[in-house]
Amino acid sequence: MIDAYAWTTPNGHKLLIALEELEVPHELHWVDIMKGEQFKPEFLAINPNNKIPAIYDRDTKHAVFESGAVLTYLAEKTGRLLGPDRYTTLEWMFFNAGGVGPMGGQLGYFAKFAKEKIPHAIERYTKEVQRLFGVMDKRLGESAYLAGPEFSIADVMNFSWPRALLGFSLEGIDLAAYPNLARWIEAIGARPAVQRALARTPA
Amino acid sequence: MIDAYAWTTPNGHKLLIALEELEVPHELHWVDIMKGEQFKPEFLAINPNNKIPAIYDRDTKHAVFESGAVLTYLAEKTGRLLGPDRYTTLEWMFFNAGGVGPMGGQLGYFAKFAKEKIPHAIERYTKEVQRLFGVMDKRLGESAYLAGPEFSIADVMNFSWPRALLGFSLEGIDLAAYPNLARWIEAIGARPAVQRALARTPA
Repeated sequence: MIDAYAWTTPNGHKLLIALEELEVPHELHWVDIMKGEQFKPEFLAINPNNKIPAIYDRDTKHAVFESGAVLTYLAEKTGRLLGPDRYTTLEWMFFNAGGVGPMGGQLGYFAKFAKEKIPHAIERYTKEVQRLFGVMDKRLGESAYLAGPEFSIADVMNFSWPRALLGFSLEGIDLAAYPNLARWIEAIGARPAVQRALARTPA
Repeated sequence: MIDAYAWTTPNGHKLLIALEELEVPHELHWVDIMKGEQFKPEFLAINPNNKIPAIYDRDTKHAVFESGAVLTYLAEKTGRLLGPDRYTTLEWMFFNAGGVGPMGGQLGYFAKFAKEKIPHAIERYTKEVQRLFGVMDKRLGESAYLAGPEFSIADVMNFSWPRALLGFSLEGIDLAAYPNLARWIEAIGARPAVQRALARTPA
């Protein structure tokens, strides 16, 4: 039994999707980051970096934080969605962790959430997200999914950030120039497990 | 035999340190990112995301990009510096990939390299790097190294960014408030393999 800590953000959706795709028995704990619940001592014991997602495995008494480590843990525990090659899966997981994740987060902050609109910062992160979308598009023109011909946790890791950024309707961020990325987003969004995961919201 | 692609940046130093620590037979290829050599077709074949570090293993014909995947590959190939627990090592590697790596990079950009000085951005990334240093300091108060009592690739992954940021002499970024982080940086910096790695520079 897994205790799953998440919120309805792109990083939280990675865990929610993995739980549904991998059919992991779990108890879901919403961590309301708008109310600062990620700073509560009981959550910091799970993730000292005060970020969702994180898990605690009651069977092994193992807590895991960082979405990339959490998805790897759950895939290896269930023996599913590992991709054809361990390192190819891992490199595309790190690609999100260091790329579209943080850079998309900066774009969302400066272009959508910050009151002060700073053209230099908006342009910087728009260009970087466009570049990263281009890298994904090229890869997805050569391979059905990021780690190979089958859907894997590398796709779970990378799906939620482009989806969220596209939902913000930001200038310069659309799928017109990225047909392979568009096809991949549509295919993943059509998966029943993904739809179940995205439909989960706090009561 | 490993073809190693690096430059003298914090991310490049991760690979250079791993090669020395793990005593990996390799041929080093400097990729001069100031001259745009990361965009050459022969390098893009190794890393489609045009970033160093990356490797090509001539024995297995396997290319690996993203520093976290590269360090994991080399540690598993040699069976060394894996840390006591696979997931603890992995979570601290992702901690760098999504945290001090990209956020430290943004701080370096806005506080040191960008001509336009934007207080909002400098403050944002100074605070985030301070927070992340605090998370590392707390962990290193409980554990000699990030993944446990012994030096591992989790430390290799996390060492070079704080070291580089401290070298920039930025306002608000110093070790006075982080005694455990300071102890850890000093201990790693004193390792002969780390010193050999940091001394390597393009001819």
